[in-house]
Order: sequence, then C-alpha cells, then structure tokens
Amino acid sequence: MSKKGKRSFKEKFALKNSLIKEALSEFLGTFVLIALGCGSVAQTVLSHGAMGESITIYVGFAVAVTIAIYVSGGVSGGHINPAVSLAMCVTGRLKWIKLPVYILAQHLGAFIGAVAVFSVNYDALMQYSDGELTVTGPNATAHIFATYPAPHLSLINGFVEQVMSTAFLLLGVFAIFDTKNIGVPKGLEPIAVGLLILALTCSLAMNSGCAMNPARDLGPRLFTLIAGWGTEVFTAGNNWWWVPIVAPMMGGVIGALIYVLFIEIHHLDTQPEQDTDMYTKYELTNVGDGFLVKGLNEEEEQ
Amino acid sequence: MSKKGKRSFKEKFALKNSLIKEALSEFLGTFVLIALGCGSVAQTVLSHGAMGESITIYVGFAVAVTIAIYVSGGVSGGHINPAVSLAMCVTGRLKWIKLPVYILAQHLGAFIGAVAVFSVNYDALMQYSDGELTVTGPNATAHIFATYPAPHLSLINGFVEQVMSTAFLLLGVFAIFDTKNIGVPKGLEPIAVGLLILALTCSLAMNSGCAMNPARDLGPRLFTLIAGWGTEVFTAGNNWWWVPIVAPMMGGVIGALIYVLFIEIHHLDTQPEQDTDMYTKYELTNVGDGFLVKGLNEEEEQ
Amino acid sequence: MSKKGKRSFKEKFALKNSLIKEALSEFLGTFVLIALGCGSVAQTVLSHGAMGESITIYVGFAVAVTIAIYVSGGVSGGHINPAVSLAMCVTGRLKWIKLPVYILAQHLGAFIGAVAVFSVNYDALMQYSDGELTVTGPNATAHIFATYPAPHLSLINGFVEQVMSTAFLLLGVFAIFDTKNIGVPKGLEPIAVGLLILALTCSLAMNSGCAMNPARDLGPRLFTLIAGWGTEVFTAGNNWWWVPIVAPMMGGVIGALIYVLFIEIHHLDTQPEQDTDMYTKYELTNVGDGFLVKGLNEEEEQ
Amino acid sequence: MSKKGKRSFKEKFALKNSLIKEALSEFLGTFVLIALGCGSVAQTVLSHGAMGESITIYVGFAVAVTIAIYVSGGVSGGHINPAVSLAMCVTGRLKWIKLPVYILAQHLGAFIGAVAVFSVNYDALMQYSDGELTVTGPNATAHIFATYPAPHLSLINGFVEQVMSTAFLLLGVFAIFDTKNIGVPKGLEPIAVGLLILALTCSLAMNSGCAMNPARDLGPRLFTLIAGWGTEVFTAGNNWWWVPIVAPMMGGVIGALIYVLFIEIHHLDTQPEQDTDMYTKYELTNVGDGFLVKGLNEEEEQ
Repeated sequence: MSKKGKRSFKEKFALKNSLIKEALSEFLGTFVLIALGCGSVAQTVLSHGAMGESITIYVGFAVAVTIAIYVSGGVSGGHINPAVSLAMCVTGRLKWIKLPVYILAQHLGAFIGAVAVFSVNYDALMQYSDGELTVTGPNATAHIFATYPAPHLSLINGFVEQVMSTAFLLLGVFAIFDTKNIGVPKGLEPIAVGLLILALTCSLAMNSGCAMNPARDLGPRLFTLIAGWGTEVFTAGNNWWWVPIVAPMMGGVIGALIYVLFIEIHHLDTQPEQDTDMYTKYELTNVGDGFLVKGLNEEEEQ
Repeated sequence: MSKKGKRSFKEKFALKNSLIKEALSEFLGTFVLIALGCGSVAQTVLSHGAMGESITIYVGFAVAVTIAIYVSGGVSGGHINPAVSLAMCVTGRLKWIKLPVYILAQHLGAFIGAVAVFSVNYDALMQYSDGELTVTGPNATAHIFATYPAPHLSLINGFVEQVMSTAFLLLGVFAIFDTKNIGVPKGLEPIAVGLLILALTCSLAMNSGCAMNPARDLGPRLFTLIAGWGTEVFTAGNNWWWVPIVAPMMGGVIGALIYVLFIEIHHLDTQPEQDTDMYTKYELTNVGDGFLVKGLNEEEEQ
Repeated sequence: MSKKGKRSFKEKFALKNSLIKEALSEFLGTFVLIALGCGSVAQTVLSHGAMGESITIYVGFAVAVTIAIYVSGGVSGGHINPAVSLAMCVTGRLKWIKLPVYILAQHLGAFIGAVAVFSVNYDALMQYSDGELTVTGPNATAHIFATYPAPHLSLINGFVEQVMSTAFLLLGVFAIFDTKNIGVPKGLEPIAVGLLILALTCSLAMNSGCAMNPARDLGPRLFTLIAGWGTEVFTAGNNWWWVPIVAPMMGGVIGALIYVLFIEIHHLDTQPEQDTDMYTKYELTNVGDGFLVKGLNEEEEQ
Repeated sequence: MSKKGKRSFKEKFALKNSLIKEALSEFLGTFVLIALGCGSVAQTVLSHGAMGESITIYVGFAVAVTIAIYVSGGVSGGHINPAVSLAMCVTGRLKWIKLPVYILAQHLGAFIGAVAVFSVNYDALMQYSDGELTVTGPNATAHIFATYPAPHLSLINGFVEQVMSTAFLLLGVFAIFDTKNIGVPKGLEPIAVGLLILALTCSLAMNSGCAMNPARDLGPRLFTLIAGWGTEVFTAGNNWWWVPIVAPMMGGVIGALIYVLFIEIHHLDTQPEQDTDMYTKYELTNVGDGFLVKGLNEEEEQ
C-alpha cells in the first residue's frame, strides 16, 4: 500500500479520543502481561517442573512486564495494574476521572489474557488434571491463573505482605521514573521495571505468589470461576480473593508516598528552562501521548 | 595492511548490490541463531542435564537471537525469520520482491547452522545415541535440531499455539521498534528482542518447543533428514512438520496487525522536521543500509 | 492537589540540609537492599528450596542492589555500604565529616530492613522453625539475616576472602563510574553494579555468603539478637561477627586504591572545558545533589 | 588531599608510556576475569552443587567478562584474550608490535587470578580434596582452573569445537563494535559482550568447558602445575593443553574474517567528517587511550 493510501486508512480508523486510546493500550498491555506471565506458571506446573522451575516463573513474569510496558507505555503510561494507576492519581500524575476506565481496561485485558493461557495450554491442562479443574489437591491448576495463600499463611500476614510488596513496587517505580534522581535512560524504563519485578518475585513470592496487582489477580480468577473451577476460586484460602485486591491498592499508595516524602520532595527546585540536565537526560515529554510521568504537568491543563 | 591497501581491497570485493548484501546478512544471522540456539538444546540433551537445563535453553536461545540481530540488523534488519519478513512486507516495511530472497537466505543459514551443531557435538551425539540417530525413543536426538510436539498435544492445539506465540513475537517486535511508543534506545533493540524471546520461551515452550520461525524449524529438519535421522523427521508427531511453518506465517501477520490497530495507527501525526523527539530518541535512519524500521520510508523510493 | 498547593506543601516539608537528605537516602536505600536481598535468602531457606535456589539468591541480591541504588543514588550516591563510603572518603570523593552519618543511616536502614523480612515472613518462619529461632542446627534461620562461615572455613581464610571480595567490589565500582574509562551510560550504573554483585556472588559466596558490607551484616545481626535468636548470633562461627565488619572496610580501600594506581592515575589530563567527551558521555554533575562521583570536585568547596 | 596535591601525586606516578599502561590494563582485566570466572567454577565444584550449578557458571563467567572489560576497556581495549588481540592485529586494529606485550600481560593476569581463586578457596579446596590435589578422579579439582576434555571428546572434535567457538566469539565481538551495523551504545559494549559469552557457554561448553582464550587456559594451568597438581595438568586428556591455545588463535582470526567478508566490507563508505551518525552514535574515539576500535585509525600514526 502506498504512503498516501496508508494516510487515508489512518484517517479513517485512528482514534481521536485520547482516553479510548489509553484504554486500548492498558487492555493490550495487561493482556500481554497475563498471557506471558501466567503462561510461565502454566509451563512450570503443567510440565511437572520439566520445562520450568521457580526461576523461570520469576524471570518469565519480569520479562512479561517489560514487554507489556513496551507495548503500552508510550500511550497510557503502561500501568497495567490498578494499584499503579491509583498511586498515580493520589500523587497527581493521573487524572482521577481516568481511573475507572484504566481499571476496567486492565481487568478486561487480564481476563482475556487468562483465556489465552487456557487456550494455548488446553491439551496439557486436560492431561495434567484428568479433565477435572480443581483449586486444591495434587492436580490443582487454579493457581496457574490467580494467586492463593500457602498453607502456613494467615490472612493478617498475607495482608501485610501484599501491602509491603506493592509498596516496594511503587517505591521502585517512582525511583526509576524520577528524573531528578539517577533516572533510567529514556526507553529503558521497561527493562528497569522488569528488574524490579525480578527483585520482588525472588524475595516476596513465597507466601502467596506476590500478585501486587488487583487486575492480575481478579481478572484470571473470574475466568476460572466461569471456565470450570467453580466458586471455590473465591472461597479457597479462607476467602483469600479480596486480599490481593485491597492490600495492593493500599500498599501502592503507601510506597509512592514513602518515596515522595523520603526522596522526591527534597529535590532542589530547578526552573525547567534553565535545567541543564534537560538535554542530557532523556525527558519523557512529547513521546506519543505521554508516559508514566506525563501526569506531572497534567494539572495545568484543567 | 595500510589504509590505502584496505580501500582497494574493499573496492575489489565490496558488493554493490544491496539485495545480495542483505541476503548474506540474513544468512549469517540465521546461521548464528541456529548454531548457538540449537546448540543450547544439544548441550542440555547430550549432557543428560548436567551441563544445562530448561533455563539455559531459554536463556541460550534468547541471547542467540540477540547476537544474531547484532550481526545482521544493520544490513538486512535482522529478521532471521520468514514470519518476521512476511509481517514486514504486509505492513509495508519490506518490499515484497525481497521476500523470497530473504526466506531462502534464512533457510540456508539455518541449514548450515544445523551442520555446525552437528559437527561441534559429533562425538557427544555418537556416544549419547550409540551411533543410532533416532527421532523418538529414550535416546532421541532429532529434537535438538527441529521441534516436535509433546505427547499430549493435538495438531489443532499445536496450530493455535504456534499462531499465538508468533503473534506475540511480532506484537513485541513492533512495540520495541515503534519510536512513537516508548521505543528502545538505538543499538539496544537486539537486547530487548532477546528479552522478548525469553518471555516467550518461559511461557510458551511446553507444547512444542516454541519454534515461531519456519526457517529455524525447516532448515535443521532438512539437515536431519539428510544426515541420518531419515524421513521420520517429517512423519513424526502426526506429520507435525508443516505446523511450525504455516502457523507462524499466519501468527506473525496477525500479531503485527493487532499492534498496528490497537496502538500504532492512533499515534498523532508529527511532521518529521518538527519532531522534537528526533534528537533525543536515537532514530534508526542512516545506519548502514538501514534497520528493521528502514522499510518505513522505502515506499517513496519507488 | 494543584501545582501551587504542591509547591507550598513542598516549601513546608522539603529539607534544606543536604546531609539530612543524604542520610534519609542512605537509610531508604539500605532498607530496600536488606528487605529484598535478605528476603531472597528467606524465600529459599523457608520454602526448603521449592521457591528459590542459589541462583535466585544471587540474582535477588543483585537486583536488590540495583533498585536500592536507583532509590538513593541521585541524592547520596547510593553507597548503601560503609565500605563503599569509606573508600569514597579515602579517595577524596566524600567528605570525611559525612562518613559517620552515612554509616549510621546505613545501619539503621539495614536494621529496619531485617524487621521487614521478619514481618513479611513471620508465619513461614514460625512454621519452619517450630517457633524456635536458632543460629545452628537443621532448622537454623539466623543466616537469613546475617552471614555465618561455612564449617570448613577458618577465620584467617574468611578474613582474606572478605578483604578480597570487597576489594573486587570497589575495583568494579570505580571502573563502572570512571568516565575516562569505558564508563557506563548515565542512568545505567545501578544495573552495571547489579551485574557486578552477580559476578561476586556467583564466585565468592561459598565461604561465608559474601557480605562485603558491614551494615548489611551488623544491622540484621543486631535485629536477630533482639528478636529472639540470642547472643549466639555473635558467638557462632568462632565469634565470626567482626570479620564481615573489619575485613570489608580494609578490602574496599585496597580495591579502590588498586584501581586508582593501575588505571585511573594514568589517564591523560584533559581540561574540563575542552573535554570533547563531555557532550557524548553523560556527565554526572548537576544531577540532584550529585552522584557517586560528585566528591570529585567537592574538595574545592572547602 | 587537595586537588593540587593530587595533581603532583599524579605527576609523580602517572605513566607516560602508553604500552605500559595498556599492559597494566590487560593484566588487571585478565586477573579479574579469572578470579571471578574460575571462582564461579570453584564455587559450584567445591560446594558439590549446593552453592552453584551450570547456570551460575555460565552467568558467572559472562558477568566476569563484563566487569573485566569495564576495568580495562578504556585503556587497552579490554581484549583480556590473546585470540582477540591476534584478530585485532590481523584486521589492522592493533599494532603487531604490541601483541607480545598484550599476550604476556594477559597470561600474567590469568596466573595471578588463579592464585586468587586458590587463596580464597584454600580451606574449601583442602576439605573437598582431602588435601590431595588431583586432575582426574572423583575429587578432581584441576578443572576449576584450566579446561579438560569430556571423556567422549576426541582431539579432532575438540580442536574443531575450539576453533568454531572462538570464531563465534570474534564474529560477535566484531558485530558488537561495528558502528556501521546496529552497534551497541557507547559504554554498554561490555554488557553485550557478556551476553555473547552467555550465548557461547550455554551452547558450547559441554565438550571442554569452552575456553576460547589461550591466557584463560594456560595461565591457570601453569599455576596448577606449580601449586601441587603436577605435570598431569599437561598430560591429561591425551595432552589436551595445546588445543585451547592453538585452536582459539586460529578460530578468532577466522571468525573476524568471516564478519569482515560477510558484513563489514560491504558497508557504504561515508566520509568521517560528514558522518551524520557521529552525533547520535556514541563514537569511541577520544575516550582515554581508546577502545576496542581504536586501532582503526592507528595505521595513520605510523
């Protein structure tokens, strides 16, 4: 097709509404995250450890996050996680009005991502479980999709852990995107966030799989409810399901505020036009519709 | 040799024809991919797991792709995969007339890469297999070279999986090279693609080894046909051989189109000469004979 | 909150005193290092190897260091280690008067980091140890927090090893931050230091866990003393505790001086204002309150 | 010490002779490579696999190479390998007169690196081997230092493998440093070379440990000869010792020439002063005494 043909094709289908674009982007990003991230759990579980082990799950989830942010970061900031979106709202980096749209798109993406994991591994799932989709027991497969607490874990310890894990996640994300701190070079933030995920899964995955993301947990859990695992996906683990929803939302805000109070607020003010740093540091402005830090200047628009 | 001597040496042997250069480049890149990638399978299989395990195969293939793109990316775009080349043609990034040449070069490179794996591991192969090169059974070695389905896998599930895997591959590649999204800094794309391969192999390798690349599969399979494994390399797995050829070609186009429709087409148009991003982002123009994105402007040449 | 509201909020709470800022930064950085680093040991030990193995500890500690430096590097240089701070003082990169403040903040951060590891893993710890917190024996858990020598290790070998390990650490850090050597691009130093930690733990962790950091060792050790492991944390291993304090302080200085004498001192002098390198290399000046190399020009201030 | 004091200190001790500087640099770089690289073998062997496995050796060697190049790359090019230095001479990137000095420095560094591995692990070595340092048998430890062929390997297969491995090494190095190909951003080449080493060890280490470096093999072998392993270190494996010396020297040149003939020679000539690429690509000129590519312009000096 010629360049001109492409332009008119684009004119016809390109979305003008920024929020719809961002919703599409969060949907696609979270879809990739779950399809590849939960896929790495599926590979390890369903192969009885022959094709994967704990390190392939941790690495698998980390690089899934990296790719998901490369897919969605330039359009919607690549939150792919309601806890991140909420922390961005609380710290004035995202408009509150966008929050429900982001969260809905993230849950839809996670749900469809679970469908992909199920489809790709259908034969393996049926063989592993003898066709019986169970939440507990030796052939349990529900933990491929959503997280469940280890037998030793109390609800209170689990809650504390999910708050703390997500606090570390947001603390790390805020550091990675703080251009007045060291700051990751533009275009490499997704890799740094992947390393952050690797740090968190290597150290905080033992208790309950370290969801740190309500959409990552609830979306696939809803899928398993429908696809044949039944209501036990909500009752298992002493009704565990609400913990990876409520705790990350709280933890994310706490982590973001800790970073702001300990580090960000004490940076010296520099006038943007005199900022000698501006040309050597890869500023994140004017990249498509913005990036994780775009909300920084968003308030003025109002 | 003096600088002057080098020039005239260069004058004598340097190719003027761009397509032959690109064919050489795709040949060499795919050769490296197979020699090192399938080499990591050989190391794990032939050492009975003592010198490798699933993670070394996933990492081994990922870094093999990274090195292969560093070798070939600046000249031919570093496709090293017919499914990538086809998706580039469909989206107007590569001239259709070049496609058969690319595909032929990729298959030749993969075939010679299989020869290298065979030569380097000849003694180990003979000891492992007692001199009998088999496709199935306890001492099977054919899966070092080409992919075969796991016992649990039906053709239809395998086909779906190869479509989906390659769709994720192209979706990720398009995101990595989209300079209006986050965009990987120039010169680091091969590392990001390596991380993408790692994400895919950690989550999608259980069913059939995740070929996602017709040349990577057919080239070595043809070698095993000739080298002593016999026609079973084509009949095994319910005539599996055509799946990792047809499905990736379809999946690659699907993945590329999903990225274009969900993300790329909605980017705001910016005039190249006013693109303030141009100096902070490492544009890929004018680097040798171009790179993965070079086809973007190729249409105007016509 | 509006931009203006944010400014006045900032005016109220932003610290003017640079040293207090830096202390906060070192505290937070070392906290992250221990919470995530020792967390990866906890995950492997308490899951009996099911959720981690040696590689997840090495990778876990390496990425914990990377994230900790992203959190603290732009404000205080991201030393997160008294041995690093001392070597910076000896080579004129940090004012001596700041050293005790840095060291105190690092120990406090490490102590609170150990509290976090304990809280997050409380249920798992109790189940693993049957509620009995021991330093030696089959259910020992003290080595999750501080380092202890392997049975084969003599004090003299352990001392030599800790001197040498920390010498390699500082030698590597000085190379990574030497802008007249290759030099890591600005913003990626934390990742390079993470790779350095990976190199050190893959090769030097067998004898005593490779502390290389007095705060990383003493802070958590003091926590275990208080939290129920008792005085054996100091007497175990032939009174091992002082080795990972004294040896790293010596080794760090030795490693830094080796780098200076073998490499740095022989660099050709170039006048800063004529340094053509200045625009292509991302200089570390003017980034917040400075970075690891900031002390280079600090002497003139006096 | 004051800035002025530092200058005069520097004036007194800074070397004026470039070749001596480069020799020091190659010595220190190769020392780091062996101390950390062979250290990762020691950790895995001496802990009976409890503190390491094949992947920690491959990763350990890869990051050891990365750190070694950060230490030495800006001064001497970071060859740390006679096969690399020879290939640089053959392709006009290093003066032939420097070759013997480089090779001597590399061997000395490797020898002292082996001393470091021995010292740090003395107690562990003695316990593992019951004080008997042997080359073969169940408690063999010589392969911690130098490489030995696997039982299945013939001399001819081993020779072919070492030629091919080192050819891939140089092919990759030439691609990584070719600024007219994709080219790794300045300052990140050592990380890319580390990934290359990872690709090679994941796929080519099964036969004989994949030395690819005469100094890496002969230096530690000489140390074991002296330190108590005896002359069997040279006679073992059918007098294997000369293969990882001769084959890499040949293979390196072959790999370099393949890259030049397939890729480099066909790049379009661009006048250096009009090279628009110069400002976006981080050129390697004027960095200390140069880098791997510095020899490119060296001929004119003569």
